[in-house]
Amino acid sequence: MNTFGHLFKITTCGESHGGAVAVIIDGCPPGLAITPEEIQLECDRRRPGQSALTTPRQERDQVHILSGIFEGHTLGTPILLLAYNEDSRSGDYEAIKNVYRPSHADFTYQQKYGRRDFRGSGRASARETLARVAAGAIAKKYLKQHFNIEILSYVEQVATLRTTIDPQSVSVEAIESNPLRCPDPLMAPSMMELIESAQQAGDSVGGVIQGVLRHVPVGLGAPVFDKLSADLGKAMLGINAVKGFEIGSGFAGTTLLGSQHNDPFILRNKKICCTTNHAGGILGGISTGEDILFRVAFKPVSTISKEQQTLNVAQENVSISVQGRHDPCVLPRAVPIVDAMAALVLMDHYLLHKAQNQ
Amino acid sequence: MNTFGHLFKITTCGESHGGAVAVIIDGCPPGLAITPEEIQLECDRRRPGQSALTTPRQERDQVHILSGIFEGHTLGTPILLLAYNEDSRSGDYEAIKNVYRPSHADFTYQQKYGRRDFRGSGRASARETLARVAAGAIAKKYLKQHFNIEILSYVEQVATLRTTIDPQSVSVEAIESNPLRCPDPLMAPSMMELIESAQQAGDSVGGVIQGVLRHVPVGLGAPVFDKLSADLGKAMLGINAVKGFEIGSGFAGTTLLGSQHNDPFILRNKKICCTTNHAGGILGGISTGEDILFRVAFKPVSTISKEQQTLNVAQENVSISVQGRHDPCVLPRAVPIVDAMAALVLMDHYLLHKAQNQ
Amino acid sequence: MNTFGHLFKITTCGESHGGAVAVIIDGCPPGLAITPEEIQLECDRRRPGQSALTTPRQERDQVHILSGIFEGHTLGTPILLLAYNEDSRSGDYEAIKNVYRPSHADFTYQQKYGRRDFRGSGRASARETLARVAAGAIAKKYLKQHFNIEILSYVEQVATLRTTIDPQSVSVEAIESNPLRCPDPLMAPSMMELIESAQQAGDSVGGVIQGVLRHVPVGLGAPVFDKLSADLGKAMLGINAVKGFEIGSGFAGTTLLGSQHNDPFILRNKKICCTTNHAGGILGGISTGEDILFRVAFKPVSTISKEQQTLNVAQENVSISVQGRHDPCVLPRAVPIVDAMAALVLMDHYLLHKAQNQ
Amino acid sequence: MNTFGHLFKITTCGESHGGAVAVIIDGCPPGLAITPEEIQLECDRRRPGQSALTTPRQERDQVHILSGIFEGHTLGTPILLLAYNEDSRSGDYEAIKNVYRPSHADFTYQQKYGRRDFRGSGRASARETLARVAAGAIAKKYLKQHFNIEILSYVEQVATLRTTIDPQSVSVEAIESNPLRCPDPLMAPSMMELIESAQQAGDSVGGVIQGVLRHVPVGLGAPVFDKLSADLGKAMLGINAVKGFEIGSGFAGTTLLGSQHNDPFILRNKKICCTTNHAGGILGGISTGEDILFRVAFKPVSTISKEQQTLNVAQENVSISVQGRHDPCVLPRAVPIVDAMAALVLMDHYLLHKAQNQ
Repeated sequence: MNTFGHLFKITTCGESHGGAVAVIIDGCPPGLAITPEEIQLECDRRRPGQSALTTPRQERDQVHILSGIFEGHTLGTPILLLAYNEDSRSGDYEAIKNVYRPSHADFTYQQKYGRRDFRGSGRASARETLARVAAGAIAKKYLKQHFNIEILSYVEQVATLRTTIDPQSVSVEAIESNPLRCPDPLMAPSMMELIESAQQAGDSVGGVIQGVLRHVPVGLGAPVFDKLSADLGKAMLGINAVKGFEIGSGFAGTTLLGSQHNDPFILRNKKICCTTNHAGGILGGISTGEDILFRVAFKPVSTISKEQQTLNVAQENVSISVQGRHDPCVLPRAVPIVDAMAALVLMDHYLLHKAQNQ
Repeated sequence: MNTFGHLFKITTCGESHGGAVAVIIDGCPPGLAITPEEIQLECDRRRPGQSALTTPRQERDQVHILSGIFEGHTLGTPILLLAYNEDSRSGDYEAIKNVYRPSHADFTYQQKYGRRDFRGSGRASARETLARVAAGAIAKKYLKQHFNIEILSYVEQVATLRTTIDPQSVSVEAIESNPLRCPDPLMAPSMMELIESAQQAGDSVGGVIQGVLRHVPVGLGAPVFDKLSADLGKAMLGINAVKGFEIGSGFAGTTLLGSQHNDPFILRNKKICCTTNHAGGILGGISTGEDILFRVAFKPVSTISKEQQTLNVAQENVSISVQGRHDPCVLPRAVPIVDAMAALVLMDHYLLHKAQNQ
Repeated sequence: MNTFGHLFKITTCGESHGGAVAVIIDGCPPGLAITPEEIQLECDRRRPGQSALTTPRQERDQVHILSGIFEGHTLGTPILLLAYNEDSRSGDYEAIKNVYRPSHADFTYQQKYGRRDFRGSGRASARETLARVAAGAIAKKYLKQHFNIEILSYVEQVATLRTTIDPQSVSVEAIESNPLRCPDPLMAPSMMELIESAQQAGDSVGGVIQGVLRHVPVGLGAPVFDKLSADLGKAMLGINAVKGFEIGSGFAGTTLLGSQHNDPFILRNKKICCTTNHAGGILGGISTGEDILFRVAFKPVSTISKEQQTLNVAQENVSISVQGRHDPCVLPRAVPIVDAMAALVLMDHYLLHKAQNQ
Repeated sequence: MNTFGHLFKITTCGESHGGAVAVIIDGCPPGLAITPEEIQLECDRRRPGQSALTTPRQERDQVHILSGIFEGHTLGTPILLLAYNEDSRSGDYEAIKNVYRPSHADFTYQQKYGRRDFRGSGRASARETLARVAAGAIAKKYLKQHFNIEILSYVEQVATLRTTIDPQSVSVEAIESNPLRCPDPLMAPSMMELIESAQQAGDSVGGVIQGVLRHVPVGLGAPVFDKLSADLGKAMLGINAVKGFEIGSGFAGTTLLGSQHNDPFILRNKKICCTTNHAGGILGGISTGEDILFRVAFKPVSTISKEQQTLNVAQENVSISVQGRHDPCVLPRAVPIVDAMAALVLMDHYLLHKAQNQ
């Protein structure tokens, strides 16, 4: 339903044009020092209106801490983070009230629930991810502080343009050095140009985000259904517009021979390591201590300015085109969401491991 | 942990060389007619020793129904399905007792738990999936009977060989027409030849399985974390050796423009349909009524006969090579596992939908 | 943790002197008509300051609907109900900041979490139940509308004074006819007098609340761990100050013989009924269709004006006495909490039954 | 459904006359030394046919370990414990096949599921508790070994006969010194006589079991819905025939004044203790370190030899009387079930605490 995680458990709520979007984080250990600014910082990375690459909507997205934190530390009780909805020009949405926009959730919501909040996509809005990013900021802080875990992701591909930069060498500074969040200074300009062209043509583009999780302790995960890779996959596939996920060698690895794909164990500084990392840092569902590497495929945004044919709720043929400037590419704003979901998965598995190891 | 699903909930157990592998299915509605033969049939598709393409180990894998079914019908109480372990030549495993096999879970289990059942990979064994297939047979029967849902999957790619057969035209008979479970009569022979060459070279190959779910009613799934696509992804990524999952257009779809990728709605026989299916049958996490199409990437099997360098538990360099004939390709036996996991996901979401719609 | 229920699932948060108390209700079916006033009405029954019998603190407890309800109907998406904290005179709490109040949770919170919000008991405050009552109002409305289920409870016993009024004859009007919520016009005045005497003596009293659930359909519940009686018991024992729960004949029934206790089945208006109801409306964990009858024991309030000896956090002997007028009896305000928890249990089991029956 | 616990999670299955009763224990930490004999010992305490006080049915109830334990230690993987059903004289049950026995679950199962296994009550049989006791033996061992926690319970009351022995002074040896499991040498003989008289009269008796949990560390439990007392209550109310539960002062405590009921904190050997224990070892849902004391009310067994009037499935009036010697009192065999459920609750809360404290 609307809960993610088992021990570090978040429950989100909020339509994009209701009163607020919010999240309750249940299970955060007590005693973590966390400031409103640390949470806001992550949320600002997700905020619309940051650059010409994304939606021009201006939302302040200010997150309020309403419970669970006292005198700057978590209490061990549930934490409520909430952002009021401000940009609620409901009038704008009359035009789409009765239309099933192509590749939107309008149709499936109507069929499933018999009704829907049509203003700004309601619960299907990307705005819901604000709650995830806010919660993820707390997990990220905890993991950084306790294990020095680094969680970062970046735009690796935009449409057919792809950087071949080595994920293991990427820094957060390089990622944040341009509004696209692609750390390759050679490729980023062409990618950004492509996005702007698509925008001007009333169209949109997709792409791929690469994730890197560093310093994850060996032993996190579970052997069967709840493999760390499976939970990362579910986390990513639960983000709007995601159509694919791969870990380590992924789809490309299917063409290798076993003798090429196997990662030999060696001793390095008295620590057991692998000479290659086709596994992507996870064996048998459990972290190996190597970097966890994964890729997430995002389809192009379905909301475009170009005119499209579709049906309305009365099953009549209609044509629609989004008025005003649309968001041509979700990728730059999806980067902090990918980070947040990865942090939530790691945090949950860490607590589970803490409960059940010797 | 070892439970999958929320309302149609399965809990599996069993090391490959302990007493048995088993599954408790909790939440199956009462009154479903099911015979031991229907369950066995699915399990036999997963059984080792079916053909020269897979492991030669002979396991009968006879599944016993020990609770929850009475006079040929489910009671609504938990169903216990159990298969005793027979091929328990524990002696065979002394050689690998103290070795961390490359790309196996030996190392991560030892680190996580501080001990492991080294015989035949213990809980990390593919044998665990027998329990899933047995449980999936019940879900499959229910879905077929109530909605005429067809669940089928097949081998689409072996190493670099790929069939371009249209998944929407494939029949279960075509899939079962050869031991590889590839329904393309032109490509299947080359693929099988490739597998046998790899086997003779002491090596192994990976590939891709394509899944197709037909006649899924519109409205199954959930909007946020538990999108139908996310749960299918988790289900597949929880199968041993899986490194990637994509739904609909997947990674390839990331290169399209929004105007190309969007699936227009039209009316066909008074029913709302899409002219294309880049979505893969799921919009906003909820089924559209179109065929659900997904692809699953399997890495090459890590157990090979070729000699490999690795470490033992004393952190010494050792070389290993599996004795006897090894399994060069998991794909044909993975097909019924993919089917089973898909059936479990659909069944769970169907019951959730039943609970919560009007 | 802070979630109750599985399909109609509520998650509460909020310290008594943090920003707000709130609840997310996940799993409410779409299409239920519900107004803010209907929710407020239940919350007002729980509000402090209603009468001389309870705490004099004045809290408006206004509940805001921030998501999940649109155009007067539930959307099927999570519902956020929130009440801001107003009466936050944190200064008042300096006196108890470092003291372990007798029979309060100060000591156990400090030991468990290593820190606590000492203002007004933080999360251990009765204020947390406001969130439960607000959520319960929605469940109550649904059950009333779909099955005409009546949920009512009343004060049956105050200290040693007990009414013997027949629970099956009690109406909500009779319960609300006096501020104590005891429907017995003969006993209520003495009970109220007793409470006021205790208050004046700086002391407090406990008692028993009787619950009655009418028109519950046959078949709700589960056979083993999640018996309807077990879930009602957990719901009630999770309310602050509750020390006991009994269903049907309860502790008194332990002295009967089997032949006296068994409830014979008979046919009444072509419906299978029982001539007696020692079972309290539940057999084998499943509702029989008879009235569900249970009793809940509340200890006397631990916060009293009388001076008491205790320890402070430095482990020194100190004496404390609550300043100002204290709450001498939780019973009248606990009635709507008992109602709410019963409604939540029934609603959850109803949805589970809907999912899993034929 | 059929799962109890969240981190130390048991799932039971099995009709009394199906193939087996079994339990999967998921979440047991690795490395616990446990022998089949230790598990069997607890199960033998629950076994029918131990004495003249209980059912004469002879069941060996041999428990088999089929997974999760290797070389005498838990692996951290799920543990399957299974006992085959032996005393399956299905023929005996033809007489009750179509009858709704008074105060049995026949009627509610039939209504809920539309069918039932009528042989020996199917899933509603007391035999199901064998699975709980087997699982509880592992939890009990873990808690004893890690914290020296002692879990014991005993028969305190049979019909109107009650011992006033101090629960804090009772030893397991005293409990096991007679077949009734009442540690009071003065009262036990009269109680046993009363049970035998009831048996001879074709009738049955109920009573109360007192539970004592010693050396529980301070800090286990949770503040809101999952109070340790609420989870103990649910665990006990989920046992067949239980109609009431109280913790600490319970129903009797409702007649005290707050000043009498409050347990003052004092320092004893530099440890914070309470001079009284009306709380029963739990404050605000969290353990105080004092003994946890609770009482469980069992109604008289519903299966009696005396003739009773009831209805059959065709809604006709019929009379029934159980043939052969019936079980006049569940109490002695319920003692190990109460122990097991308490152990499961403590173990689950211990793992949760381990996950979430600093």
